[in-house]
Amino acid sequence: MSLLAFSSDHAGFQLKRQLLEYARELGHDTFDCGTHDENPVDYPDFITPVCRAVREQEAVCGVLICGSGIGMCIGANRFQQIRAALCITTEMAKLARRHNNSNVLCLGSRLISDDENLAILKTFLETDFDAGRHTPRILKLESLGGPSSL
Amino acid sequence: MSLLAFSSDHAGFQLKRQLLEYARELGHDTFDCGTHDENPVDYPDFITPVCRAVREQEAVCGVLICGSGIGMCIGANRFQQIRAALCITTEMAKLARRHNNSNVLCLGSRLISDDENLAILKTFLETDFDAGRHTPRILKLESLGGPSSL
Repeated sequence: MSLLAFSSDHAGFQLKRQLLEYARELGHDTFDCGTHDENPVDYPDFITPVCRAVREQEAVCGVLICGSGIGMCIGANRFQQIRAALCITTEMAKLARRHNNSNVLCLGSRLISDDENLAILKTFLETDFDAGRHTPRILKLESLGGPSSL
Repeated sequence: MSLLAFSSDHAGFQLKRQLLEYARELGHDTFDCGTHDENPVDYPDFITPVCRAVREQEAVCGVLICGSGIGMCIGANRFQQIRAALCITTEMAKLARRHNNSNVLCLGSRLISDDENLAILKTFLETDFDAGRHTPRILKLESLGGPSSL
């Protein structure tokens, strides 16, 4: 049993409900960091609790949902040690796990069907990191973005 | 005339050559930050020069290419003021510009055809930011990821 942390904006709220139920069917514990209805909110307000849970190893991974997934992916990758991947196919979910050891899945509720998003979550959760040549690459990601790098 | 900064790893090298040529056909100046052949390299080593050029307003936008685009997107979003979007459809390119004012386009050379990637670049370059309700949201992205936020 592993804990997954979820959040979404209003555009991702309905899909989040389905993903939470599906994750529990797959045997995971879930934690819902909001939003809790379809009233308009700003997606950046829902990124930090999920990233914090993943960084502090309270959650094995995070799932962030907005209309396109793009804004969530930008914001989550602001955090060191978070490797957030926007996936709109199961192939992308496999690559995000195998090559990037991604620990936050970003989904777009308005880009593809709900069933496709559920399949992407399942693939993401079931795919392991390949390690090997990919390990030094993901370590190098942690040297980017600090005050000295620009 | 506007300057676009490009980089790729080995997996994106051939696509980068095509994108550079296409961008010049569209009337843009281009700057190639490497890699310069198909010998294996680590994609994080090619992110900083493009992000620096965009942040310092030497380039109007950046284009980063690897096999999936995922690793480039993680690394580029480590940088404050960079809003990197992985796009595998023209719809995503429109949303990245309209809603997120994205200034770095990430492409996956192994996910879709070269022609699809060229069309995504064209759409990205021709689409303006909607501003309005999206402006406070992208400003909020800049408060994420600092030492005080986790």
